Formats: sequence, structure tokens, C-alpha cells
Amino acid sequence: MIVTLKTGVKKTEIDEVLAKIKELGFTPELSKGTEKIVIGVIGEGNRAIAYRNVFESMEQIETVTPISKPYKMVSREFKKTDTRIDFDGFSIGGKNIIVMAGPCSVDTRDNLLRVAKELKKMGAHILRGGAFKPRTSPYAFQGLGEEALRYLAEARKATGMPFVTEVMDTRQVELLERYADIYQVGARNAQNFELLKELGSSRKPVLLKRGMATTVEEWLMSAEYVVAKGNPNVILCERGIRTFETATRFTLDLNAVPVLKHLSHLPVFVDPSHGVGVRDYIAPMARAAIAAGADGIIVEVHPNPATALSDAHQALLPVHMAQLMKELRGIAAAVGREL
Amino acid sequence: MIVTLKTGVKKTEIDEVLAKIKELGFTPELSKGTEKIVIGVIGEGNRAIAYRNVFESMEQIETVTPISKPYKMVSREFKKTDTRIDFDGFSIGGKNIIVMAGPCSVDTRDNLLRVAKELKKMGAHILRGGAFKPRTSPYAFQGLGEEALRYLAEARKATGMPFVTEVMDTRQVELLERYADIYQVGARNAQNFELLKELGSSRKPVLLKRGMATTVEEWLMSAEYVVAKGNPNVILCERGIRTFETATRFTLDLNAVPVLKHLSHLPVFVDPSHGVGVRDYIAPMARAAIAAGADGIIVEVHPNPATALSDAHQALLPVHMAQLMKELRGIAAAVGREL
Amino acid sequence: MIVTLKTGVKKTEIDEVLAKIKELGFTPELSKGTEKIVIGVIGEGNRAIAYRNVFESMEQIETVTPISKPYKMVSREFKKTDTRIDFDGFSIGGKNIIVMAGPCSVDTRDNLLRVAKELKKMGAHILRGGAFKPRTSPYAFQGLGEEALRYLAEARKATGMPFVTEVMDTRQVELLERYADIYQVGARNAQNFELLKELGSSRKPVLLKRGMATTVEEWLMSAEYVVAKGNPNVILCERGIRTFETATRFTLDLNAVPVLKHLSHLPVFVDPSHGVGVRDYIAPMARAAIAAGADGIIVEVHPNPATALSDAHQALLPVHMAQLMKELRGIAAAVGREL
Amino acid sequence: MIVTLKTGVKKTEIDEVLAKIKELGFTPELSKGTEKIVIGVIGEGNRAIAYRNVFESMEQIETVTPISKPYKMVSREFKKTDTRIDFDGFSIGGKNIIVMAGPCSVDTRDNLLRVAKELKKMGAHILRGGAFKPRTSPYAFQGLGEEALRYLAEARKATGMPFVTEVMDTRQVELLERYADIYQVGARNAQNFELLKELGSSRKPVLLKRGMATTVEEWLMSAEYVVAKGNPNVILCERGIRTFETATRFTLDLNAVPVLKHLSHLPVFVDPSHGVGVRDYIAPMARAAIAAGADGIIVEVHPNPATALSDAHQALLPVHMAQLMKELRGIAAAVGREL
Repeated sequence: MIVTLKTGVKKTEIDEVLAKIKELGFTPELSKGTEKIVIGVIGEGNRAIAYRNVFESMEQIETVTPISKPYKMVSREFKKTDTRIDFDGFSIGGKNIIVMAGPCSVDTRDNLLRVAKELKKMGAHILRGGAFKPRTSPYAFQGLGEEALRYLAEARKATGMPFVTEVMDTRQVELLERYADIYQVGARNAQNFELLKELGSSRKPVLLKRGMATTVEEWLMSAEYVVAKGNPNVILCERGIRTFETATRFTLDLNAVPVLKHLSHLPVFVDPSHGVGVRDYIAPMARAAIAAGADGIIVEVHPNPATALSDAHQALLPVHMAQLMKELRGIAAAVGREL
Repeated sequence: MIVTLKTGVKKTEIDEVLAKIKELGFTPELSKGTEKIVIGVIGEGNRAIAYRNVFESMEQIETVTPISKPYKMVSREFKKTDTRIDFDGFSIGGKNIIVMAGPCSVDTRDNLLRVAKELKKMGAHILRGGAFKPRTSPYAFQGLGEEALRYLAEARKATGMPFVTEVMDTRQVELLERYADIYQVGARNAQNFELLKELGSSRKPVLLKRGMATTVEEWLMSAEYVVAKGNPNVILCERGIRTFETATRFTLDLNAVPVLKHLSHLPVFVDPSHGVGVRDYIAPMARAAIAAGADGIIVEVHPNPATALSDAHQALLPVHMAQLMKELRGIAAAVGREL
Repeated sequence: MIVTLKTGVKKTEIDEVLAKIKELGFTPELSKGTEKIVIGVIGEGNRAIAYRNVFESMEQIETVTPISKPYKMVSREFKKTDTRIDFDGFSIGGKNIIVMAGPCSVDTRDNLLRVAKELKKMGAHILRGGAFKPRTSPYAFQGLGEEALRYLAEARKATGMPFVTEVMDTRQVELLERYADIYQVGARNAQNFELLKELGSSRKPVLLKRGMATTVEEWLMSAEYVVAKGNPNVILCERGIRTFETATRFTLDLNAVPVLKHLSHLPVFVDPSHGVGVRDYIAPMARAAIAAGADGIIVEVHPNPATALSDAHQALLPVHMAQLMKELRGIAAAVGREL
Repeated sequence: MIVTLKTGVKKTEIDEVLAKIKELGFTPELSKGTEKIVIGVIGEGNRAIAYRNVFESMEQIETVTPISKPYKMVSREFKKTDTRIDFDGFSIGGKNIIVMAGPCSVDTRDNLLRVAKELKKMGAHILRGGAFKPRTSPYAFQGLGEEALRYLAEARKATGMPFVTEVMDTRQVELLERYADIYQVGARNAQNFELLKELGSSRKPVLLKRGMATTVEEWLMSAEYVVAKGNPNVILCERGIRTFETATRFTLDLNAVPVLKHLSHLPVFVDPSHGVGVRDYIAPMARAAIAAGADGIIVEVHPNPATALSDAHQALLPVHMAQLMKELRGIAAAVGREL
């Protein structure tokens, strides 16, 4: 950590900072530039960050610049090799591109089973479907709850595909632990720290979506919450950030893909359906995600969008999804991956 | 609700839309412009919004434009008069400007009692203090929990000031219901819908902070969750949004103050401490908040920032707070309010 | 255009609006919903937009919603087929992916000629190089001016590659018209309307970069300025927008690629170098751009970044560029294009 | 400037950095932390920034952190006392709050003279009015040009109020120099560096609006362009930034007011009309601007908004403006200023 002093500080004020650094068990290294005085706070990185606060509150200090990253266990520096999460027949985070697909929310047993079988046939790996839905409006459909979980389990049995479903509250964990294969944490809960801690006690993988205003660094801190509690199986999922642009529902930030692959060893997924929110733009962005280096995508597919109970306008029909799978195979090959 | 059809749609495609509108129990009104065909979906406002989905998923429809607002009970149209929340000796949402102040998180009993007494003396109305803290880092101080609540209760007894404290998880509600006077919902839980529903069952006021990427409309929808469940006592609190600017920690969006006063009958507060995150800028923004029409502010005050366990650099000293109270009295008078 | 009236307007206020609509030569169509009164303003689309103003200033009107798009000649509706810009040996906007590459700013004749020859060999089509540079700091290198243009012309002669260079001011147009093959309008001039009008009088193609806070709609309006003045050869170039994320220099918005291909017939390019600003992330984003449907990319390549006079950290070495060209060929093939 | 090396760099790579620092005439100061190696680049601040580039392009360097600010002459450190710009009878940047007001664009001589006289009577100091207008659409009214300037000069003669008008292009400077008292640089030209340099050669004050995605630091760099060229009379004017929020046209960033007063000695103005773009919200934000410490405001006032040719919905009527003047007097007094 480096602290920069305000211009014109007195000798006694400098000494105060030096004394405080030593008092906290660090070694100060003072550099006097022609304009500014800068003091390095040398010691074990993460420990210094805990004291950032103390320095920021000292009147003579202008800025505090951390040198170490605030996350540790999720960083590439902590673990050089890519994290792989193994399932029966495939792995997330390996050479293969993994496709999660299914309806936004589970509406009927028939629709779910039908789409699950079609997805299995076209080569998707994991079924998605919401049982509990975070809806902006209290008057909108809130999900079928446990009934949806039973249908998802039935679809799993019929197709062999594991399923991912959203958890919205710590009180839902016990129920979901019995049904789901992968927990999904939605954008609105990306910094619900109590929920993250709870999922850290599970051993099931957690698909952690980025919050709509979460920086890459904060997102990795959220992943750190899960990993630090004992669950190493976190999958990061970009799903669009809030920007000024309204031509798409959110701005899918594909830049985050190479950034995350550089900073972390965790698998990186992309959700183009929520990211752009317009059916016609989903396939191009799914292709771009794989070209940018993503390990997989999660896409909404519904056999009959006009009857869907949530986010129908961003659901692909099975026929479009089959076409997309074909395109993704070409992209995967071009970047040395397989699908 | 108004739907605009794609350019060049065929007669049969138009008829499909008209039929769907009638099928759902609405009346269609068709307007043929020189470039576009537009169809009004006439019927009870909120009910149409529930079907927005259906229209958005029809291939021949280009855009769906809602006319009614998606929130109802929190709107100024639903209730013309300002919501007032009465406490012993003062009201939130009336002529008086209300000041909530105290430490970011409760650290020691002594610090809390000391600052509470000073705040009381200078005319603050409500004590703030965190028992459970949402921290970006799993390695940072997470709050004293129930111990902090006991200290807050003690400070209340000593000063007569009610207190507001943050709730982060549905499982904390039972405990907090026994201690707190006002629930605070933090920015990271602004769309934690399970928590909002739970607080809708309480009768204690809820200080609902804006999420860092929550639009005014979404924020009012979150308030609607609480009110629709039966708790009318919601206080909206602007606390800064995420923008590209890094000179301040967040961009405190004071524009939201007149916007909310126009759209809703709920009281509007501003939190300049978290909004700007730099001690020197808090007082100017607090003054500006009242000048813009806010009903009150919530400010961090700590007797000794250098020993505080969270967000010390944005805490005012009691001496600064006393000066700010004086300035706010002048501003309040200039806008026809009292403090 | 549709106007929504405020709740509770009186009959005379409604009549005023109807009268104003007729006075301006449009036909009103009134719809009374259960909550709101909505009036369609029927007539030729663009003409109504010019009067938007008038309606917005009427006290009884709550919102004005345009139905027609504000741009015309650049829209896909105006011209269904893709615009192609032909050069000697290749076309922009056709089946082939076009690569523009070269140094950010031209520094020495030798560096430029050397890199131009290498780029030609690896299959790039157009040379880029700045003669006039928009620098945030008045103390930074501002470009070699006409000297750079002479070097660029020499490189063109040596390699047969046309060149693109930035124009920053209307007074530079006369000089650049004699040298350059393509004008580049930088992000900071994306809404410099005087400059756009001036370039509308040229017949040379204009590579129009998106401003860092320009919406897709505003960007198309800027293109409309050029096209409306008589120059149909506009190439749209996404180069990153300003968001809250700081892990990359800007947020390259690849979503804009399919959006623009849908809304407009103009060719769409992507500049990953400025978009991400970090060398390691350029190749993944260039690949993603082509996968998303871009017609080409513009990339910074410098033979010796450590001596470059601007933006060196985002320049690829020729060896990296050659590798990228290979990868792009694979992606192009996967999306049915050629390179 | 401080450079942080990548984890695991070799001794020879460290030596390369040290050698480069010395070669460029700086003194290196090396600190080995437990995780990272950090090297201070000691020497005259601004000179080091010019070489930032060189360090950023070295493969072994992870980050480059500037310590000195990139602007100099506009900084509070360069000049401690507030810049005051004197006019006949009042000063900008002194104890008095200064009010600039008038129509967005000059439409008719009568409207202008009428509003100018009313504004003079209510105590406004400077008349505003556009002769050249930056319009997003090429089909919108572009301003009356020199005719407007003649009307503005006539209004000045009639009222004694100097006037401010927008300059959009370097070629307009010669004409405006003959008429205008203050140049206005609009948001879309905030980084039009050729224009800024040109205005640096004038001695007339420049009202420099913030670009809609310009950081405070970049904005000060734009001011530095003008000042470095010899014109010290720059007035900074906040006018709203682009964010995700759509309830207001832009997000007026009042946080910038105390930030700028801290970082710079230049006067700070606020434009609430363009910032919020909705008539009802202008007065509250004007009051808030003064409460936050602004030196003045610029407001749109039009005697008959329904006939105005641009931005009518954000123009106040003279009667509203008179009311606002009264309110501002109260706020000014509360913060120790006068109006």
C-alpha cells in the first residue's frame, strides 16, 4: 500500500504517519519527490488493506493506493491452473465449451420436458430453469417454487442433464440443496453477502452472476466470499452491466471475459439473453462470447415464448438454438476449443 | 400500453395482434401513420403491463411502450398527500427536516454513547449505527451483531433518540424487530425482493436506500414491494449511483430528490456520507440535499475516525456535525422548512 | 408521435392539444384508457419530430413518445442493401473482413514504412496513422502534422495500401483532402457537427467513431449529418464507451455491432485497441468483434512500442498482429465471411 | 509516478526498469513488499507523466500510478486564491452569486429584448442566447448565426448586460470575437482541443461546459489547454453527465462543485436547465447548486416556450425565474454569499 501526503505537510505530520505505520507492524519507506511525499507501507498485502481505513482517515494523507489485490484465493496468482468442475461426462473450465440452456422460469411440466429433450439432442450440457424468480414488480409471476424443482428433477432424470436454478434467499438454501446441481446467484444478489456465505458452506457449484453495477474487482470479492467459506466451485457469469445505452436492455461486457481469465483461475460464462434482452442480438453475442475466450454460455430457450411467464422476448426458439449450436462449434474450433 | 408494428407487416400479422389484444380482454385502437402502424392496448393499466411480455415476444411487434406507471401504491397519483411517519416528538415527511446521524458501524459502547449524547445535544433526531455490515471483503469487520443492538438500545434509553440499523438478511428480521426503531435496507439489497417482502410484514418504518444502479422507477418498484405487503412506512434514501466519475466514491444523484417528490408521496432522504465518500465534500452535499427538497439526511459521525472499524474517511467529527447543523438550519429556512 | 396527457386534465386542456396538432398539419387520434389519455399525432414521421418541442412545452402533456426514428438516410428502412465502399482490390461492407492497422500516431518515417510493409505482407488492407492527435493533455505530443501525411503517402506508394487518418478541425480538411484516403473522426469529435457537415461535402469515406457517451441513436444522427450533406460513404466504428468499470480503459460495446447491422445499412467496424487499452485483451476482443458480425477492425500496431509517442501500451507488435490475422481468418470462416 | 512490477519478475527485468528510469533522467526508489515490487520514479512531476507511456509498454510492469496531477496551471496548488473575472459592476468568482439567463437559442429580436429586460429587472447579471446551435439532428433549427449576434448586442446595449454565446468551430471565433463578451464551449466540444487552443489566444472569458462523459480530471485538462495558451479566464460549468438514469435528461453532478472548488481556483457554474431537462426540476437543482458552493448558475428563460425553436421544455417562464431569484437569495445568504 502506498500513501501520498498532502502538499505542504509539516515534519511532525510526516512523523505521525511513519509512527502509525510502525505501530501497526509495517515498515515505512519514504520517497520525497519534487512535488509530493510518498510513503510505502511494506508488509503482508492483505493485512495492510484491512488498515486502509486508518490511513484514509488521517488528515495529512491525500490518497491511499493499494498495491496488492484485495482478493486472494480466487486470483490467478494464488492458483495458476484453471479451476475445473467435473460433472458426469463433461467438465466446466476445461477444453470444452459448456452450454447451459432452458426457460427463464419453469412454467409447465410439459414445456420443460419438451425443451429439455430438444436441448439434450442438440448437445447442450446443463438445463436452466427458474423456480424462484426475482421480479422487479411485486405484481409479476414469482415462480412455481418447489413444484418447479420437481419438474426440473424429472427433466434431469429424463435427459441425464444436471440443472442450474436461482437461489434468492438464505432460507431457500436448504430446499435447493436437495434438488439443484448448481446454484445460480442472480445479478441483484451479487453482493448479498449473507447468501454468499451460506453457499460457501455447500459443495455444489455456484454460478455467480455479475451485479449490474459491480466492478470486476468487486465481483471477484464476492466470489472470494464463497471460496473463503470452503466452496471452491464458483463459475463467474457476465450478464450485462448498466450503462447509458438503451438500444440493448443491458450492456453485455465481453471485455470482462479476457480480464477475468487474466486475473482469476475460475471458469467464466456469459449470459447473452439477459445481457442484451432482444432475441435477434443473442446469437451474435453468444458467438462473440466464445470468441473472446468464455468457457461457456447460459441461454434462454423456450418452446413457445408467447405463453412464457417471464422474459419471453429474450428466449430463443429451439430451432434458433440448434442453429446457434452449429455456429458456436465453428467459433470454438477457431479458438482451439471444442463443443 | 402502445405497441408499434414493424415496417411492412402484412394484414394477417396485424390481425393476429388485434386478436391477441381482444383475447386478453383489452380493446385495441389502431392508428396508421405514414411510416408506422401503432396499436393502443386499452384497459386497466397495471393489468396490461403483466402482459407486456406476450406482446414483446410477437415477431411482428417492434416496440412496446407502457403508458401507465408500473408502480401504484407508492405513486403520487394513488395518494396525493405526503406520507408522514410520526415518532415521539417529531415526524418524518412533514415540515421539519429530520437528521439521522451516528457511526457507520457500532464499534465500542463508549464511542456510541458519547456520540449519541453529542448528537442529541446538537438537535439530531435519530441515531444510526450498524450492527450487521455489508462489507465488500470477506476479510473486513462484519459488525458486532446483537452486542451492537444492545448498545444502540442503551443509547436510545440515554438520549430518547430512536435508532435505525441495517438489515441484510431475512433471518435477521426476527432479532431486529425486537430492538430497532427503523430498518435500513442497504444499496446492495435494494432489489433483494425476499427481504423487502419480509419487511412488508413489519410495521416499523423502512429506510430504503437506492441501489447503485437502480433507476428511480425500479427503486419505486422496490418500495411498492414493501407497501403492497402492508407496510406503508417507507422512506426513500438516495445514497449515490455508479457512474464513470471517480473523483467521488459514488455520484450522489440529487436530481432524484425533486423527481421522487413529484412521482411519489413517500419521504425522501439523502445520505451524503456514502454518496461522496470524502469527508470534505459531505457538508456541501448535505446542504444541497436540503436545498433540493429532501425531507432529511443521514450522516456518519464518529468521535474518533482513526479508530473506527469501517468507512472512517467519510465520518464527520462531532464538531463538524455541529457546524453542519447550523448551516442546514439556514438552508431549511430558505426553502420554507424547519430544523 | 404519441403524447400522453397528465392525469386529471380538463376537457379544455385536451381540446388545446387537439387544436395544436391540427394547427401544425397533423391528424390527432385520441384514446381514452382507464388511467391515461393518449393522443397519436399522425403525419409524416420526421416532420412531427421537429415539433416534439412544442408538445413537450405544453403543461398538460406528460410525455412525448416518438414512433418514427429520428434518422432517415442511414436507416435500414431507407435502404435495405448493405452499403459497400469500393477500393482498388477490396470492398468495405461486403463479404470480406477488412483490417485497418498501423501506429496510433506517426512518429518516424522508418517505423511507419517498416510496419506498413509488414502489415501488407500479413494481409491487412488499410494503413492507419495519426498526423494530428487529440491529446487530453496540452503537454503531450500533438502529432507531426503534414510531415506525417507525407510519410503516410510514401507508405501508400510502397505498399499499395490506402490510409486512414484523423481529422480534428474543419480547418484541416483542405490539407487532408489532398493526402488521405479515408477520414477518421475521433470519439471526441463524434458530435462536432460543423466538422461532420464539412466532411459531408467530401466524397472520401468517413470512419466515424462513436463518442464515449454517444447512444447508438445519436451516433446514427451524426452519420446522418454526413450523409444528408451528400457523402454516403460513412463507416461506423465502435471504440468503447464510458462506464463505471475501470479494469479496461473503456468498455468496448460489441452489442452495438448487431444493433447497428439491424438499424442501418452502413458498414460497422470495431477498434479494440482504444476500446480496452490493454495489449493482452486486444486479440480476444478483435476476435469477438468479427464473431459478433463486424465488417472489419482497426488495430494499433507499432514495431517498437517502447519508443512510440502515444498510447504505446495498447499497440500490438507485428508478430502479435500476424498471429491475430490467423485467428481472425478462422473466426471469419465460422461466420461465413472471408479474410 | 510509481510503477508496480508483475509478480515473479526476474532480476534482469527489474534492472531493465531501473536502467530505463535513470536513462530518462529520473531517480528510481525500489521497495520490495512481500508480494509485489514497487519502484518510485522520482523527479519533476509533469515531466514523468510524459513518459508514462514508456513504462506502460514494458512487459514486466503491471501498473503505473501517477502521483502528481496531470494539470498544473488550473490547480489550487498552483494558485491558492480564487480566480476572479471582473465585469462592469460585478465579478465572477467573488462573494456574489452570478446569474446568467436567457433563451436557449435566439429566435426573434422581440422575444430576446423582452426577456433581456425582464431578466435585468429581476437582477440577473449576464444574458445567454445561442446564435450557433449544436443540434443532434441535421434537420433541426441550427441557429440564426450573425443575425442573433446583432440582436444580442442590441439587448446588451438596452440593458447593460454582457452576453455569453456558444462557439462551435474554430472558424467562428473571428466573428464571435467581435460580438460576444463570454465564449461558451458546449458539452459536445469539451474535448475539441483545436477549439480550446484557439480560445486560449483570446482574452475573453470562456464558459467551459463539462462533456457528458468527461471526468473532473479530463475537464480540468481541457481548461488547462485554454489557460496554457494564455487565457486565464476560464469558468467551469457543470451541465449533467450521462448515466443509466432516464428520469432526468442527464444526471446533473453537483458533487463536482465541491470537488472542483477543492482542486482548482477557477470559478464553478452550474447549468440546471440542460442538466435535468425538465422544467419542474430546474429550480430545486439551481437552489442545490448554490447550496453546494457554486459561484453562479446559467438558466434558460424564454417568454413563450411554446414557440421556442429549441429545448423549450426546459425553459422557465420569466415569472418562474423571478421566483427562483428570490429563493436563491435565501440560499446564498445561508452559505455566506450574496445575490
